Formats: sequence, C-alpha cells, structure tokens
Amino acid sequence: MKNNAITSRDVDFAKWYTDVVRAAKLADYTSVKGCIAIEPNGYAIWEKMQQILDKKFKELGHVNCQMPLLIPENLLNKEKDLVEGFAPEVAWVTEGGKKTLDERLCIRPTSETLFCDYYKTHVKSHRDLPMLYNQWCNVLRWEKETRPFLRSREFLWQEGHTIHATAEEAIKETDQMMEVYKWFHHEILAIPSIVGKKTEKEKFAGAEYTLTNEALMYNGVALQAGTSHYFGQKFSSAYDVKFTNKDNKEEFVYQTSWGTTTRMIGGLIMVHSDDYGLVLPPRIAPKQVVIIPIGESEEVESLSNKFKEELVAKDITAYIDNSEKSPGFKFAEAEVNGIPVRIEVGKRDLENGTITIARRDTREKVNVSSDIDIVEYVTDLLETIQKDMYNRALEKRDSLTFEAHNLDDMERILNTQPGFIHAMWCGDKECEEKVKEIKGCKSRCILEEAEKIDDKCVVCGKEAKHHVVWGIQY
Amino acid sequence: MKNNAITSRDVDFAKWYTDVVRAAKLADYTSVKGCIAIEPNGYAIWEKMQQILDKKFKELGHVNCQMPLLIPENLLNKEKDLVEGFAPEVAWVTEGGKKTLDERLCIRPTSETLFCDYYKTHVKSHRDLPMLYNQWCNVLRWEKETRPFLRSREFLWQEGHTIHATAEEAIKETDQMMEVYKWFHHEILAIPSIVGKKTEKEKFAGAEYTLTNEALMYNGVALQAGTSHYFGQKFSSAYDVKFTNKDNKEEFVYQTSWGTTTRMIGGLIMVHSDDYGLVLPPRIAPKQVVIIPIGESEEVESLSNKFKEELVAKDITAYIDNSEKSPGFKFAEAEVNGIPVRIEVGKRDLENGTITIARRDTREKVNVSSDIDIVEYVTDLLETIQKDMYNRALEKRDSLTFEAHNLDDMERILNTQPGFIHAMWCGDKECEEKVKEIKGCKSRCILEEAEKIDDKCVVCGKEAKHHVVWGIQY
Repeated sequence: MKNNAITSRDVDFAKWYTDVVRAAKLADYTSVKGCIAIEPNGYAIWEKMQQILDKKFKELGHVNCQMPLLIPENLLNKEKDLVEGFAPEVAWVTEGGKKTLDERLCIRPTSETLFCDYYKTHVKSHRDLPMLYNQWCNVLRWEKETRPFLRSREFLWQEGHTIHATAEEAIKETDQMMEVYKWFHHEILAIPSIVGKKTEKEKFAGAEYTLTNEALMYNGVALQAGTSHYFGQKFSSAYDVKFTNKDNKEEFVYQTSWGTTTRMIGGLIMVHSDDYGLVLPPRIAPKQVVIIPIGESEEVESLSNKFKEELVAKDITAYIDNSEKSPGFKFAEAEVNGIPVRIEVGKRDLENGTITIARRDTREKVNVSSDIDIVEYVTDLLETIQKDMYNRALEKRDSLTFEAHNLDDMERILNTQPGFIHAMWCGDKECEEKVKEIKGCKSRCILEEAEKIDDKCVVCGKEAKHHVVWGIQY
Repeated sequence: MKNNAITSRDVDFAKWYTDVVRAAKLADYTSVKGCIAIEPNGYAIWEKMQQILDKKFKELGHVNCQMPLLIPENLLNKEKDLVEGFAPEVAWVTEGGKKTLDERLCIRPTSETLFCDYYKTHVKSHRDLPMLYNQWCNVLRWEKETRPFLRSREFLWQEGHTIHATAEEAIKETDQMMEVYKWFHHEILAIPSIVGKKTEKEKFAGAEYTLTNEALMYNGVALQAGTSHYFGQKFSSAYDVKFTNKDNKEEFVYQTSWGTTTRMIGGLIMVHSDDYGLVLPPRIAPKQVVIIPIGESEEVESLSNKFKEELVAKDITAYIDNSEKSPGFKFAEAEVNGIPVRIEVGKRDLENGTITIARRDTREKVNVSSDIDIVEYVTDLLETIQKDMYNRALEKRDSLTFEAHNLDDMERILNTQPGFIHAMWCGDKECEEKVKEIKGCKSRCILEEAEKIDDKCVVCGKEAKHHVVWGIQY
C-alpha cells in the first residue's frame, strides 16, 4: 500500500522529505515564518533522544542548568569572532513592557557569552574546576531558507559548556563529547556518520578548532549532526574568566562547547525512511511494537493483552491499536509512523494457531505460532532490525563515497551523484573556495588519521597536507 | 552550625529567601536584567518536578509537543481580552537578520494563540477530539520587580492546551488537571495548598473561569502555584477552531489550558526551609541521602560503599561525599543543600559498632547499630520526614488561617500577621477593590463547597454569595 500522500523518494527527494514529515505528523508549518510546530510524534522522538543523551552526559559527570534566553548587545560584542559569525542571523528584542529598551537584547543563537558571564563570577580556584554544564533549550537563528527540522529559525538543542584548569583536560573533553555523538549516531540512530575536524574556514566562530559528526543522507547530501568545539582561552580571555591555578597564579580557564539539535530528526528521516513513510531504528522509536487485533473474539483480545503486558514488562514499548478504524487503515498508519514491529492477532489466523509479525524496515511479514515466546522473538527481531538498518545505511554511504584526484574528478562526481568525496588538500583557503564553485561543495571535515590518497592537492596540485572529505550539505 | 551566609528567617524573610537561594546554589542573578541563571542544584529540582508531573500527564493521555517561541502581532490581537491582559508585559522582536521586520513578533507570554492557530488546521471532526497537548518551555513576561523563581522575566513552565467536543468534557479536564496540581503539592511537595475558583477580577485574561492552587508561605504570604482555565468557546470562536460534531454540524471546540512553573521552587523554599538553608521533602529531593565517611579505614570505606549500593539498588538516590573537605564542612554543605538524610560512617563510631544518622528537617541525630538494615531504615525515615514536613506545614498554615467578619477584622489581621483570611463576599468588584486597599490584599479563591461563615459580605454588609479566601500575595 503505497502512501498516496507521499511523493516517491527517487522522483523528488525534497518533496518526499516534507511529505514524510507531514504524513507521519512529525512537524508542521505555522503562521510564524521560518518556525515549525513540532507535533507529538516528532516531539516523542526528541524526548527519546534527550533521554538517551542526557543519561550519557550525566554518567560523564555533567550537570544541567538554564541560562537566560536573551543576551544584552554589549555582552555579545565582547568576543569579536562570535559577533561577526552570528550578527547576520540574530533577532533583536527592542521593546519590552511598552517601552523602547535602552539596550537591544538578542535572542540567544548560542550561549557561550552567557556561560562565560556566569562562570566569571563562579570560578575562583582550580579546586572549582572542571565545571561541566549543559542546557537543553531553544535557540534562534534568522535563516532565510528553512526546512522542517533541517533548518528552522528556532530549534531545540542541547549545548554543553565546560571549563577546565588545563588545555589538555579541555581537549580531552572536546574529543570525548564527539565520541558520544558518534556513539549516539552509530549505536542508537543507526547512522554510520564520519567524524573529523573542520577546516579554519568552516569551524565555529571563535573556536580554536571544531570537531564535527557528518552524516550522509540517502540522496548523497551531507548533514552536519553534532559539533564539539575547543576554545582554548579565547572566550575566557575576552570575558575575563580567571582562576588561581595549582601554582597559585591567575590564569584564564580552558573551555569547550558541544551541541546537537532537533536537526537529527531530519537526519533520521533522510537516512532510513522510504516511500511508505517513516522508518525508525528500534532504539530511538518512541513506540516499538503495535499490536493490531483483527476480528472480535475473546481469544484475539486476551492474546493481544497478554502480548502487550509481557512486552511492556520487559521495557519494550508496545501498545494495542483498539481504535475503530479498519485493519488495513491501522497497518498503513503504523507503517507511515515508522513503528518497527507490527503484530497482527487475527481471529482467522488463530484458528490455525498462528499470528502474523511484520517488520517495518523491510516490510516482510511472517506467520509464526501463536504460542511463541513473544518477548524473546520481539527482542531478537528489534535487534536484527537495528543491525540491518545500520548495515543498509553503511552500504548506502559506501556506495555514495568517492575518491577525487583532480578538480575534473570532483566535478564529474558532483554532476553525476553527490556523496562523500575523499580528496587531498594543501590547506589553502583559495583551493577550498575553488571547490565550492562546484555546486557549493564544501569541506565536511579533515580526517586526521586517514592515509594519504595522493601527494598533491586536488585543486592546485601543490603539496597536500590533509585528507579531506567533501560534499554538498543541507 | 548556623550558616553565616544566611540571614535569619524571622529577622528579614525577604533577605533570608534570597540568601537560601544563593547559599544552596539554586539560582543566581545574571547580566540580563530580571532574568536568572538556574544553577544545577535548582535545575535538578525542576527536572524532578518535570519527571513526576510529565509521567502523570501522560498517564492521563496527554502528549507533548513544541510550538514556536514567537507570536506575530496580528495573531496575538485576535482575542481582545488576552491582548489587553498581556500587552503591558510582552517583549517585542522588531529586528531580525539585520532588517527591521514588517510585523513585530512578541516572545510568548503564554501560547493559547499558537495552539489555536495549530488546532485550527488540524481538527476536522469530533473523531479527532479530544486533543490533549502539553509543552515544556520558556516564556517571557516583562515584570518590573523580580525575585529569583517567584517572579522573573523569563521562566520555565509547562502549559497544557486541550480541545474537546463538549463543554462537559472540557470542564472535567479543567477540574482533573487542578486535582493533579493539588496532588502534586500535597503528596510530593508536602505543601498543604488550597484549591478554589478565581473571582472575575482575578481570573486569566480570556478564560470563562480559572481554578487556582494557592499555597501559604512561612511568613503568611500567599503564592499562586498552578492554575487551570476553562475557556469554553471564547478562544475557538476568536481563532475559528471548528469541528463537525456528532450531529454533523459545525461547532467551535471547547478548550482548556493549565500550567505550573519554576515558581514552585520558590514555594518549596518558603514553606519548608530554615536558617540552616534548604529543606527538601524526600519525594522531590534530587539527592535523598548523603553518606559521609569520617576517618580513613577499610571498614569505613567498605560500609559506606555497601550502604550506597544497597540504597541505590532500591531507587533511593544516595551518594558518598568523598571530597577532600573536612567532615564539618561536608555536614554544613549537605545541610545547606537540603539533603533529607545524612549518614555518618565514622571510624571511631564503628569501633563501638554504631553509625550516626541525621535528618535534615528536624536536625535530629541518632546513633544506630552499624549492622542495621539500611534500606528498611532509610525508606521508613524518608517516609516519616515526608509526612512530618507536610504536617508541620499544615500546622503552620492553620496557625496562619483566620476568619474575618468585617473590614476591621480584616485590617487588624493583616496589620498583625498576614495569612489566609476566610470571609464572605457579595460578589461585587467594588468590595474586592476595597479589600485591596488594605496592604494590597486580594481574593485568593472562592471555596465553592465551603460552608457559609456569615450571611453578609465582609465589606458592604449586603447579602453574601461566596466564601472567599483572601491574602497578600507574591
């Protein structure tokens, strides 16, 4: 049953994407330009992302807090790279309580300034360090073109901001948090992302360096999904965040920040979903199993209830669809909403002692005995689906991964099929700019540990310094 | 050990309050006027509040979502009572992306407008109803005088917004959610709040009626802590939210909204805390038990670890304070932070086969055998503390509850000791205004089921219609 509300993915990928977002009721447009309403089905995915990441952050010693939404202009202006980076895309509050304000306040596009301002008065000695704070909140960036989840003026995210007594510790934190994002993508979202360092041109405004987690969508377009920044003492010197070190000397703290956003929901969709709607890896699916009773009988009802209770008792989120819709409608709804496993408990099947179990990812259906150990069966199936989804995404990524040895290669690849393009680079900004002329292709990240694939820069032919992955991005 | 950073509660209540907030590191002022930073200790309380309330909301069929932060001016203007009510206290975004906006956008002070705008395009038939949405988010109201948690320009809250096919159902929802707030205060926060209906003058701008949960602070000042509004069809007609009812006729939906905020943290402090710092009821304390090893020995260490593991296994949040501070310092810190139970595992005590257990609320210490069943003992103690804290708060509330039979009574009481003042009222706004002249005393709520205590209005002497509780408020 192809969903008629969904354009085919291979016909028009952009339209397919927004069709899936709307058909699965993940988000919708609003009367507020560039801002979406995250609907319950979409928000439930975000809640599960929050739960899993938050638990991990806390295990690593981080604590949550909440800084203000608004930043006074003079505070923002203290770090010049940050201002220059964000000035074009901030929104300003200029009136409050029926009065024009003496000073404009911007809605936070990110909160380095506010954390610095807080830390400044709360850190004195090396004994107060490290301070490992995180916040879950909304931020605003005045984007021109927007797309649900991928790019919207307001979005939800977590931003970790930590300060440390030594550069070494802060660098370790920067790496560690990127490992968390990579783990989250690979193990939970079943997305085989790649991790590397941003070039000078692409790094975060004000960072010493930026690590990035890059995912590749089904259509070969890249999506930046999680960054971790090492600031060294750049912000702490601009905002005067000092501490007394072990040698009893004043020193500026060493700082990091790292964040992931609701944009990951967009990534999930564009890696795994299909023409029938949403497909979710079991570990991130808010609802993992739907049980659909077909035909009315005591046996149908009691078996459905038994299955549900047994699954729920083992922390598998299962529910019975007892609504008044037809079975066919329920199947389609479970499908479009991406419920990983569907159990059909049919009156007629039960006469033959069977039930039907369907997996969403492959849409395969099997008949199994109705006295199956449902917990064991479903647990295995969910694991299999998770693994299979990762492997299919990995295969897809590999099939969209190319090598370029000169600019012609690059052009030919990008004109045929975009993807991750591996190529060597001399390190010059001009060469980066040159690549960008081809369909806006940017450096995704530098792979510091990867082997050389050429001695020469893909653009200028001079000595190559870095193995870089390039791609067109969302 | 009286905490020197804390002014005595009986000397200067306002100063005591802010001293406790800062000493327990719950929140701090920021460079953003009227906005606070909620620090990790404070945010952990909010997280626990969210956890407990969110679970209850979901059990009752509600789902979470996220509407935009910004509201276009023309959208806000559609419901005139709402605009008039909130216009004096909104903040306006007038510039974005380096341009002056064509239309001002206000930062949400509350989101009825956005939910109506969403529901309008998402509800068609009675089969789509009810829609039971809630969101956890930040809102902004341009207050002039602010106080941490109690009143700040930005605060965090949950706002439930539901639409229904009948008035009856919506009224039931309004009542039900007030019952949830009452339950939360009585059972979890150990605050014996009272519940009733707001007068016409005090109800929410645009509501048919407002139910309120009113708590009484230690100093006799009232705090509104949770409201639930029935809107009838007021908003749905202004925003054109229609559905086809069972008789196949178009009708406007029946609507409710209900909310609680980070202000409850202020209430918690002002009901339970003392001159030694924060006191938290065990059910809301993010950390329930601290174990403090005293003196170094293998026995001290292994017993501390054993206690911790056994408690944590039973979902009691226990931690060992292994920091390098002195035991005295650790005691004071646990005290100021309001950890309900402190277990001291001392080397010398152990030689006599004992440990010491202290409860935060009464500051009592007892010696018990070191081979005690720690889980059983602590479980009982936590329950006892929870119950005792409620009972003390109830006693305090009752001792601050008065009856007034005329305006002189009212004045005398308010000049001596504010509190909840029960008095009859005729229903006229002028009489309400007259009471307000006495130290700004307002009606807290109408107790609809309470017995008459007079035949005549406490102000004008005309026939009394309502039993009202009055009080000075935060």
